[in-house]
Amino acid sequence: MEFKIAVLPGDGIGPEISVQGVDVMTAVCEKFGHKVSYEYALCGADAIDKVGDPFPEKTYEICKNADAVLFSAVGDPKFDNDPTAKVRPEQGLLAMRKKLGLFANIRPVQTFKCLLHKSPLRSELVEGADFICIRELTGGMYFGEKYQDNDKAYDTNMYTRPEIERILKVGFEYAMKRRKHLTVVDKANVLASSRLWRQIAQEMAPKYPEVQTDYMYVDNAAMRMIQEPTFFDVMVTENTFGDILTDEGSVISGSMGLLPSASTGESTPVFEPIHGSWPQAKGLNIANPLAQILSVAMLFEYFDCKEEGALIRKAVDASLDECVRTPEIQVAGGAKYGTKEVGAWIVDYIKKA
Amino acid sequence: MEFKIAVLPGDGIGPEISVQGVDVMTAVCEKFGHKVSYEYALCGADAIDKVGDPFPEKTYEICKNADAVLFSAVGDPKFDNDPTAKVRPEQGLLAMRKKLGLFANIRPVQTFKCLLHKSPLRSELVEGADFICIRELTGGMYFGEKYQDNDKAYDTNMYTRPEIERILKVGFEYAMKRRKHLTVVDKANVLASSRLWRQIAQEMAPKYPEVQTDYMYVDNAAMRMIQEPTFFDVMVTENTFGDILTDEGSVISGSMGLLPSASTGESTPVFEPIHGSWPQAKGLNIANPLAQILSVAMLFEYFDCKEEGALIRKAVDASLDECVRTPEIQVAGGAKYGTKEVGAWIVDYIKKA
Ligand SMILES: CC(C)[C@H](C(=O)O)[C@@H](O)C(=O)O
Ligand SMILES: CC(C)[C@H](C(=O)O)[C@@H](O)C(=O)O
Repeated sequence: MEFKIAVLPGDGIGPEISVQGVDVMTAVCEKFGHKVSYEYALCGADAIDKVGDPFPEKTYEICKNADAVLFSAVGDPKFDNDPTAKVRPEQGLLAMRKKLGLFANIRPVQTFKCLLHKSPLRSELVEGADFICIRELTGGMYFGEKYQDNDKAYDTNMYTRPEIERILKVGFEYAMKRRKHLTVVDKANVLASSRLWRQIAQEMAPKYPEVQTDYMYVDNAAMRMIQEPTFFDVMVTENTFGDILTDEGSVISGSMGLLPSASTGESTPVFEPIHGSWPQAKGLNIANPLAQILSVAMLFEYFDCKEEGALIRKAVDASLDECVRTPEIQVAGGAKYGTKEVGAWIVDYIKKA
Repeated sequence: MEFKIAVLPGDGIGPEISVQGVDVMTAVCEKFGHKVSYEYALCGADAIDKVGDPFPEKTYEICKNADAVLFSAVGDPKFDNDPTAKVRPEQGLLAMRKKLGLFANIRPVQTFKCLLHKSPLRSELVEGADFICIRELTGGMYFGEKYQDNDKAYDTNMYTRPEIERILKVGFEYAMKRRKHLTVVDKANVLASSRLWRQIAQEMAPKYPEVQTDYMYVDNAAMRMIQEPTFFDVMVTENTFGDILTDEGSVISGSMGLLPSASTGESTPVFEPIHGSWPQAKGLNIANPLAQILSVAMLFEYFDCKEEGALIRKAVDASLDECVRTPEIQVAGGAKYGTKEVGAWIVDYIKKA
């Protein structure tokens, strides 16, 4: 195959982990005889500083013309204390989602045995948890009509049938590929939008007779995820609930620094770590590159390159087993590997495999 | 004092725990020389079955004319699988909140040492957690304009300045009475309504110079509550976020069956356990009455009857220490006390105190 990759390093530790993702991508392509080319583009605070726009038109063009986007992280503390500022890095994220039609955000929640002790949950509860959160990413309150003046404000949580159908389809299809258990999360006892979600899910479910489809209220899901994370296989929900639940999901695994995500939809798919830009660590060569590297695995898998993805996962597992780890997950007394060293080790493993 | 109490037993285990709450109320009033009278009223599925309305006008009148409402639980599985049914028990809850103007839902999250092992979190993380979630209860998407047809649906997340000011005031005042730390939870990086919340909070904060006021995004709060629950003292948020976060908060303590709540506002305040109607346990004399009993403590405290509240809390602690516990929290080999027996023991303790 031939891959044209748009690379968006972004802010904070973004550029450092981006390099490692690209190196792994290159190594795997060489190994399997794929061609790959990269085009770099600005985004986030970096793009605001340089061209005054967190997702410039040029970046959009580069993404649109690529086969996939390898995204790292955006966000800078200088924008944090003023959510009302006119231009903010997050707007770049939202613009990217909307313009590329990235309606499905896919976040696997997975545990790594050697990191179980990092989970805030008791190990026996979280061990074996392995589920996928699918969050609708271009609808709901994020993009509905908004209004704000000094005395009142509103957001509109609006969904249309086609928006709901296409994301539920992603949910059912993921369930078919996995343990065939789909949990549709909503607040149908209160919200009209949720009632439409549930109605449509109930219409679609008979088309997937092998899938066991549950319906769960969002408050209940927030509890269940902590009490019994192994209950879930595939969970699908709307944008705002998904924002909350996917973050909750990522933290319970104890492996937040290792979790990748994919956002897919109408145009070029985007692959990125779920963690943020960690500005305090910028330039220190301590950020864990594994989430970025695993997002490259998701990229290959998206294009049905299963062996390529599997090799990356094997390399990551091997690095953990052999304690080639960045400081925050290193065992007591273990050597401290930097971002670059972990990346290089994995590239080397791939080359030798 | 003279207390006129509206008692709403509701569904499932509601009636059983209601009796225990009433008995404790009576015992404390006798001890401290208060007068108390009770008027019973229908609500929930029970009210639907009997008069076709989950919060009948007559119940509203009784509540309105009372000093406080002692509420137990509503909900019946026969309504669960059809969130689109015209009449449902939850509507009774929402009607009660709206009609009584219960804009502030106060949920203490507290751990009990003997129940720490029941928390899904590691004991060392959750030990000492002691915070209050304040949820706005009569605004936002729950009550904003709604629309639904076969092809689209929306809910409106609307807040006005007075609605936001009065709930934030509750937050600041609770913080003043406690460890003087308020966390305002919103999604101001995305929602217009949240930006107004944050703006108003920032305007009000200087009036409470002793309070340390933090602002936190809801996705972040959902994580922090698991990673470091001891961070929080008082948290205040809007209705939908509060629905999710208060449930998450209640489960992390491991003491869900023991946690009470208060809903206060423009008219009669309501005191109730946070747990639901547990229909499967109905009539089995196994439901834990402590959350209901502690809601009576909150009732006294609301009326500034501090000693009365403290005595109830002391009695509850003593019952736990002496292993007078319902089955779900009994130690291995411990005698199994029923709902009635635990209630009677506490009444007895109060009488003898
Ligand atoms: C930064 C913010 C706008 C964004 C969101 O809310 O979607 C983030 O929290 C996320 O989950 O990707
Ligand atoms: C039953 C439901 C309508 C209610 C809510 O969402 O407010 C419940 O979840 C609660 O938190 O009291």
